[in-house]
Amino acid sequence: MDFGTEALKLHEANKGKLAVDSKIHIKTGQDLSTAYTPGVAAPCVEIYKDKSAVWRYTAKSNLVAVVSDGSAVLGLGDIGALAAIPVMEGKAVLFKEFADVDAFPICLDTKNPDEIIKIVENIAPCFGGINLEDIASPKCFYIEKILDEKLDIPVFHDDQHGTAIVVLAALINALKFVKKDIAKIRVVLNGPGSAGTAIIRMLIDAGVNDITACDEGGIISEKRTGLTEHKRLLCKITNKRGLDGNLEDALKESDVFIGVSVADVLSERMIGSMAPSPVIFAMANPNPEISYERAIKAGAAVVGTGRSDMPNQINNVLAFPGIFRGALDVGAKSINKEMKLAAAYAIAGTIDDKKLRADYIIPSALDKNVAYDVASAVKKAAIKSGVCRNEN
Amino acid sequence: MDFGTEALKLHEANKGKLAVDSKIHIKTGQDLSTAYTPGVAAPCVEIYKDKSAVWRYTAKSNLVAVVSDGSAVLGLGDIGALAAIPVMEGKAVLFKEFADVDAFPICLDTKNPDEIIKIVENIAPCFGGINLEDIASPKCFYIEKILDEKLDIPVFHDDQHGTAIVVLAALINALKFVKKDIAKIRVVLNGPGSAGTAIIRMLIDAGVNDITACDEGGIISEKRTGLTEHKRLLCKITNKRGLDGNLEDALKESDVFIGVSVADVLSERMIGSMAPSPVIFAMANPNPEISYERAIKAGAAVVGTGRSDMPNQINNVLAFPGIFRGALDVGAKSINKEMKLAAAYAIAGTIDDKKLRADYIIPSALDKNVAYDVASAVKKAAIKSGVCRNEN
Repeated sequence: MDFGTEALKLHEANKGKLAVDSKIHIKTGQDLSTAYTPGVAAPCVEIYKDKSAVWRYTAKSNLVAVVSDGSAVLGLGDIGALAAIPVMEGKAVLFKEFADVDAFPICLDTKNPDEIIKIVENIAPCFGGINLEDIASPKCFYIEKILDEKLDIPVFHDDQHGTAIVVLAALINALKFVKKDIAKIRVVLNGPGSAGTAIIRMLIDAGVNDITACDEGGIISEKRTGLTEHKRLLCKITNKRGLDGNLEDALKESDVFIGVSVADVLSERMIGSMAPSPVIFAMANPNPEISYERAIKAGAAVVGTGRSDMPNQINNVLAFPGIFRGALDVGAKSINKEMKLAAAYAIAGTIDDKKLRADYIIPSALDKNVAYDVASAVKKAAIKSGVCRNEN
Repeated sequence: MDFGTEALKLHEANKGKLAVDSKIHIKTGQDLSTAYTPGVAAPCVEIYKDKSAVWRYTAKSNLVAVVSDGSAVLGLGDIGALAAIPVMEGKAVLFKEFADVDAFPICLDTKNPDEIIKIVENIAPCFGGINLEDIASPKCFYIEKILDEKLDIPVFHDDQHGTAIVVLAALINALKFVKKDIAKIRVVLNGPGSAGTAIIRMLIDAGVNDITACDEGGIISEKRTGLTEHKRLLCKITNKRGLDGNLEDALKESDVFIGVSVADVLSERMIGSMAPSPVIFAMANPNPEISYERAIKAGAAVVGTGRSDMPNQINNVLAFPGIFRGALDVGAKSINKEMKLAAAYAIAGTIDDKKLRADYIIPSALDKNVAYDVASAVKKAAIKSGVCRNEN
C-alpha cells in the first residue's frame, strides 16, 4: 500500500486530524452563566488565591503540549514549523487514542534554543506536561535540560527518551531470549544523536557496562580529535576498553548492535564477527542499517527494526502515551530516571516469558493495553521516587 | 441561583471545560501508517514544497488561539495567566458551541507586550486565527496592531471589537425603535478603555458624527492636561463641539449613553437631562452604571446592560463566534472594518423591524442562529473587500 497517497487523502478529507472539543454544552442561560460569566469568576478567584487549584478547575491536568520547531522531522530533516504540523497533530492523535491524554501541537516559528525555552516557559500555564518533538541535536539536550529545571511539570523529549525506553524494553526481552546477562553484554551503538545518546544513558542506568559508540568517523574515543562537546562527554561513559577503529572493529565479539543511523551500514560479515546469538536493532528510518531478512540470514538471533511491516517493531508509541498518562495521574513534576526504567520494564513485561520468540520480543504498537501497564508502573515509580506535586 | 458555586461544581466535575479530540481512530496498522509514520511524511513534504498546503492538510483552517496574559480578566483585573485559564477555556467552549470553531487557550506567563507579540508570532503556524482576550489597555492596542501587521491570519481583540460590534448592533435597532438618524445623534461614552475606544471608532465608522468621551476626570478634551497618549488621540475623533466639564455636563441634550465603566455613575437626574427618548447602554460588570429598572423609571426609551438577567443583554458571544467562522471559511487574512460593520448589521438584522420592542432590540445570547447570519455577512464583506488569502 502507498501510505503517502492514503495519508494525503486522509488528511485532506478530515482537514487535519485534531479538533478541540467542549466537555460541556451551552443550551440555557444557566449553562452560559456557569461556564462563562458571571460564574466563571469563581474558579478564577480560587486559582488566584491558591495556584494549585488550577489542577482542579481547568483542563491543565490532562493537557500536554507537543512542541516542535520542525528542525529534525522524521527522516525529512529541517522542514520548519508549518510542514511539521501533520507530525505533531499525529502525535497528539496517538496521545489521545492510546492513553486519553489531551495533547495539542505547538509548532514554533523559531529555531533559536533560548527563544524556544522562553516561549515554552511562557505558554506552560495551560499545560500539565511538555512533549518536545523532532528538535535537532544537540540543541534538544539543552532545551530539555533548562525547561525541566524551570518548569514544575514534566518535560520529555520523546525522540530521546521514548526511543530509549522502547529499545531497553526490547533489549530486556531479547536478552531473556538469548539468555545473556545485561551486566555482561557488549553493546555497539551506531549514531549517537538525540535518540542514540539517550539510549546509551538509559542502557547504563539499566546495568549495561560495556557500550561502544560509533559515528561516521568510527569509534568515538578520547584519542579522536575535533569531537564536539557532546561527543567528548560520551567518551566519559562509553568505550571503557579504549577501542579505536571503525564500526567493523567495534562489532567484533560484541553481543548487541543498536543502529539509529543510516541505511545499509551493517553487513552480514560484520554480524558474523559478533559473539554468538547476536541481537540486532537496526532502526534507521525508513530503511534500516541492514534489512530484517539479511540480518537473520547472517545469523542474528533477534532482529528489531523501526518498520511496521517487519517483526519486532521498535515504536515510541509503546512508551510516551503511558508515560504521560502515569505522570499526569499522580501529578509528577518531572519524568525521572526511575519512571523511565519502570516504563521499559513494564513494556517488556507485557509479554510473558514463555511467549517470547525471536520474532516476538516486543508487543505490537497497536496493543492498547501496553499504555495502561506503562502508566501503572510509571505512577508507582513516580510516587516512590518522590517526584509528585502532591505527595500521595 | 449562585452561579459561582454552580461554576465551581461544574469545573471540578469536568476537570475544566476543554478536551482535544482526534478526528480519526487508530485501530489497524494502516491507520497508524497513514495518520503517523511513514505516511504522514507525504503531507509534510507537500507543505514544505508549498506553504499554502497547510490549509488543506492540517487543522489550521479551523483553529483559533485564545490568547491572554490575564492582565484584565472580567471585573477581576490583573489576576495572571493561571487564574485566567477558566475564562479562556470558557471562550473556547463558546467558539465551539456557537460556531464549530476549534479554539484553544494560550495563557501567557508574561505581561511584556513585545514578548507577547513575539510568542504569538512564533506559535502562529498551527492557528488560522488569533483571538486576543482580557489584555489590559493600552497595551492591547499595540499588541493587536503589530500582530495584525505581522501575521497573515486574523488577529482580533474581542474585548475591543466584539463589544463594539454588539453595541453597534444594539444601537442600530434602538435607533430604529426611537426613530432617530445615526448621523444626527449625540452619543456620550463613559470609560474609554479597550472596549470604549473600539466602540467610539466603530460608531464613527457606522456614521455617528457627535461623540463625547468621559473618564473619571470628566469630558476628554484638548484643554485637559496630563492626558495619556491614547486619550490625546481620542481628542482628535471625539468632542467636536469642544465641551468641558463632567459626565453630567456631557449628557445634557444627548441621545445615547454608552457606559463601559463602573457601577452607579449614572443618575436618574442625568437621564432626565438628555434629549427625548434617550437610549442607555449601561454595561459595567457585574453592576451597571445604572440599574435597568432605575433607567426605565428615569425615562429611558431603551435600556441595555451586560447582564443575562435583564432584557437587551449586550453580549460579545453574539459576535465573535460568527466573525471567526466567516473569516476562517473564506481564508481572510485579517478582520477589517468592513467585516466588523457587516457583523453588526447582521446581528441587528436577526430581529425583524416589526418585532422590535423597547426590551427586545438585540437577540438572545443563546440564539445559535445569530452566528451563522454573522458568518454569512462577514464572508461576503471579506470577499468584497479583498482581504482573503485565496481570492474566491
